[in-house]
Amino acid sequence: MKRIEVIQNVLEANETIANRNRQLLDKHKVFAINIMSAPGAGKTSLILRILKSLKGKLNIAIIEGDVASTVDAEKVQSEAKAVVQINTRNMPESCSLMAAMIESALKDMPLDDIDLLLIENVGNLICPSEFTLGEHKRVVISSLPEGDDKPTKYPLIFIDADAVVINKIDLLPHVDFDIAAFLHSIAGLNPKAKVFQLSCKTGEGIERWCSWILEQTKNNTTRQ
Amino acid sequence: MKRIEVIQNVLEANETIANRNRQLLDKHKVFAINIMSAPGAGKTSLILRILKSLKGKLNIAIIEGDVASTVDAEKVQSEAKAVVQINTRNMPESCSLMAAMIESALKDMPLDDIDLLLIENVGNLICPSEFTLGEHKRVVISSLPEGDDKPTKYPLIFIDADAVVINKIDLLPHVDFDIAAFLHSIAGLNPKAKVFQLSCKTGEGIERWCSWILEQTKNNTTRQ
Repeated sequence: MKRIEVIQNVLEANETIANRNRQLLDKHKVFAINIMSAPGAGKTSLILRILKSLKGKLNIAIIEGDVASTVDAEKVQSEAKAVVQINTRNMPESCSLMAAMIESALKDMPLDDIDLLLIENVGNLICPSEFTLGEHKRVVISSLPEGDDKPTKYPLIFIDADAVVINKIDLLPHVDFDIAAFLHSIAGLNPKAKVFQLSCKTGEGIERWCSWILEQTKNNTTRQ
Repeated sequence: MKRIEVIQNVLEANETIANRNRQLLDKHKVFAINIMSAPGAGKTSLILRILKSLKGKLNIAIIEGDVASTVDAEKVQSEAKAVVQINTRNMPESCSLMAAMIESALKDMPLDDIDLLLIENVGNLICPSEFTLGEHKRVVISSLPEGDDKPTKYPLIFIDADAVVINKIDLLPHVDFDIAAFLHSIAGLNPKAKVFQLSCKTGEGIERWCSWILEQTKNNTTRQ
């Protein structure tokens, strides 16, 4: 099974680099969050909300992962301390960020001026679950129009998440989504995950979510 | 660059098996459509609409691709001539169906009794663009809540599509989606793609879409 051996090697190499990234981030007291979701669930919108809400409280940098285009980096650049765009299109794994890409991006970041690094992963519920990046927390966004069965169909990404964000709750009257069923699935897969219900569009639930981010970031800085 | 060589080998092996699948399907006059989208865009709902709309006109079989679970196969099984579920969770490529999985599934199908085979790929806008399965047509679904920038961010899957379905148009009053901008992106990437605007929920646009499926299937049978 040569193919599987090769994948194993890739995962091990990724883990080594991820550990190196984490050490570098810790040395500079940067708290890093890996934000994952399906395409269009609201990763960029959530980052924009965090930037706005925590302005003046934290210095925030962004790494934008995308197969192609720089549209997300352009959206966030006016509010962030630093933004690095990674396009995965011609890379061996185009369906996820990998630790080596983050290592390279960190070289372009003024790490001593940053408290919080938000990493927007490639829009995908499968590949990003395989690759740790050196982040401190992993967040998965699931949006109402995707349906409440996503934890059942893509369990791995939810099992490893520190927090699950249910976005687009403003659409509840217009889509079939059973919040209780979704919460039940999450509780079964990963009872320790914090769950936030919010709408990046209306702002509902954003305050509680951003308080959690702030608290996590401050706890991290104090710990070191 | 050993890793890239290995990927190249996998793609070549996949292409060989895909050609074999196509020959088998052609021999039995089965027309096959590969349906791809992000998680939750409506692949299963679209298949259910096709099954209902073309009942009595075509004998339809389904291959359901999923990382885990059989929820979609259960939804479609009462209406289809045959259903085979493929779970990719422990396979070398879990983020897409591959031709070898289809080859294996076809062994369990009564091919002489089938006119149309609908293949629901894994919910993903990246990996499935790399693997041809032996299908005759490739369809990508993009749903309104995902946003109108998906062709710009995930171009490969749209470039190779024979048809693009814009689903959930019933949500237009509730989400920010510029249909003209989306159509403009598609025209730039793939001017030959047929575009359908519809709602699996309300049924709007389904008749035109199913007429196209019927026409394509019948053309295929006549051709042989």
